[in-house]
Amino acid sequence: MITISIDAMGGDRGLPATIPAALEVLNRHADVTLILVGDRARIERQLSAAGAPTSERLRVVGASEVVGMSESSASALRKKKDSSMRVAINLVQDGVADACISAGNTGALLATARFVLKTIPGLSRPAICTALPRVRGHTYMLDLGANVDSPAEILFQFGLMGCMLISCLDGKASPSVGLLNIGVEDVKGNDTIKAAAELFKRSDLNYVGYIEADDIYAGDTDLVVCDGFVGNVALKAAEGVAQMITATIREEFCRNIGARCAALLAKPVLRSIHQRLDHRRYNGASLLGLRGTVVKSHGGADVMGFRCAVEVGIQEVRKGLVRRIEKFLIERSAAATFPPSTSATSESECAST
Amino acid sequence: MITISIDAMGGDRGLPATIPAALEVLNRHADVTLILVGDRARIERQLSAAGAPTSERLRVVGASEVVGMSESSASALRKKKDSSMRVAINLVQDGVADACISAGNTGALLATARFVLKTIPGLSRPAICTALPRVRGHTYMLDLGANVDSPAEILFQFGLMGCMLISCLDGKASPSVGLLNIGVEDVKGNDTIKAAAELFKRSDLNYVGYIEADDIYAGDTDLVVCDGFVGNVALKAAEGVAQMITATIREEFCRNIGARCAALLAKPVLRSIHQRLDHRRYNGASLLGLRGTVVKSHGGADVMGFRCAVEVGIQEVRKGLVRRIEKFLIERSAAATFPPSTSATSESECAST
Repeated sequence: MITISIDAMGGDRGLPATIPAALEVLNRHADVTLILVGDRARIERQLSAAGAPTSERLRVVGASEVVGMSESSASALRKKKDSSMRVAINLVQDGVADACISAGNTGALLATARFVLKTIPGLSRPAICTALPRVRGHTYMLDLGANVDSPAEILFQFGLMGCMLISCLDGKASPSVGLLNIGVEDVKGNDTIKAAAELFKRSDLNYVGYIEADDIYAGDTDLVVCDGFVGNVALKAAEGVAQMITATIREEFCRNIGARCAALLAKPVLRSIHQRLDHRRYNGASLLGLRGTVVKSHGGADVMGFRCAVEVGIQEVRKGLVRRIEKFLIERSAAATFPPSTSATSESECAST
Repeated sequence: MITISIDAMGGDRGLPATIPAALEVLNRHADVTLILVGDRARIERQLSAAGAPTSERLRVVGASEVVGMSESSASALRKKKDSSMRVAINLVQDGVADACISAGNTGALLATARFVLKTIPGLSRPAICTALPRVRGHTYMLDLGANVDSPAEILFQFGLMGCMLISCLDGKASPSVGLLNIGVEDVKGNDTIKAAAELFKRSDLNYVGYIEADDIYAGDTDLVVCDGFVGNVALKAAEGVAQMITATIREEFCRNIGARCAALLAKPVLRSIHQRLDHRRYNGASLLGLRGTVVKSHGGADVMGFRCAVEVGIQEVRKGLVRRIEKFLIERSAAATFPPSTSATSESECAST
């Protein structure tokens, strides 16, 4: 039996997204128990309204506070010790839950998870990894913003963790890994990238060399490794241009009667384009490098999106991802010449970005 | 009279794009003289075929070599001293032309321009700046890949040069400037970004603070400043996702007879979407910080795209952009505490990336 704690209050929508998503998960996965964390009275009211009372497989744990979507991580960590997010993570630390899913504020989730669960020796922060759509299939990318200025060894560890995630989620034994750079030739990039490339070349990973950012969406590499600053920029630039294109298409199909008629006639085609590009299917970013499973859902996720994020967590637990990463990196750390564990302990250290 | 030298052989298409574009430019700008640089016999043959013999306003300068699109910048610089690219840039250095336009290999163009024309004191490399489309209007961004690891002072100088470019091309007296970061709060980002933010805050520029990468395409900031590594990744990630969306739309509208009929009926709408998103209108990236005007056209540019790039160069010359930047940065450099000119002189230094 797998137990998942859900920060039921997190995200832009809160309970109206998390509760129906939780009920869908229970229907789809008979071996899963869910713990909904948050305002007990409100959660129970919504459960009764949905005709789904609490049960052995659907429990509620009360938490009196909620972390705001734009609240600083320092404030969340120091002042909201009874937040739905914090209590949901505590349940993982206490061994009550196997994984925690939250659509709450990313900075606060990273800081809290890092403070409560600690990172694996050798890593100072977890890395954020998610799948991104391609014309055929998808690519995973990390780090998407948890770390800025990652040295070569950390980039290499991102690669190790990413490959283990892909083997868990997609069942690929030896996923291909590329390092994000501004050209594919050996002379390209800064010293950190070049040093990381050497580590990848000397490893057992299926390293394919440098890749450029257009290949994230157009290529066929399974995993793209980069610093969190660069990864965050790549992800958000892509989101921005996708929104711009969508807005332009919508405007043009609404411009006049003729365009509206065309939209009506093209509706099945437009619907299947929308389905293929539906980002909700890719919702659920893994926080890798923690001593526990935490999955971040997009803040704006709806029921389907949040359900997908919970399913990422379930799959990671089923495959024992955290233990596999932990074992591998602790062995590597023990054998390596780089500084050992910097697992954070102080609140202020965890809250800094 | 403005004289522009054109690397007629550069780009994926070469003469079939550059010559018709040159003829269009001559028709549209009565005060412009063009010098087509490359294989004299082939150029003259194509000009006669187009019914446009050489004239006072349309001259040809021979060059016996062509830089390959994937040739290294070191090879271009050392072995191709009579390339169309090199000769076109030499014409600017010799005062024969006011600006040079090339659709050739970016690395070779950067290295050659830097070696021949030199950079302004305080800058070791030129920065690449271009306009990017938004739903309404456009944003300029620099650096797009010429510099990796730019310190705060260089990021600030990118901001100065970018604002001067915008005032030349768009006539805006005080364009808004944002620094690309992974969040808008003061605590976000690495030390370089934070130090650059301080320089912007203390300046006379219309600095609006940090912006995130989705705001490049969705926001309303006139200029986005970033390191060349990050800028290149943002640009290419956006290109990749745009290609993916376009490919998906095309596939769905060709899937079956019904979809093909819908495409036929929606043709006017699809055409106007295509026109609004047409990247050719934004072709022409300025190499800023050189002691001469050089504009890089996209390698794959067609006639319209290449003509737009030539027009960017014409506008920069009309407004005296290089002299304005030079005057401003030389004064700043003389008054500043940072190391003065590192204008490159050796070929090997110019060829390194």
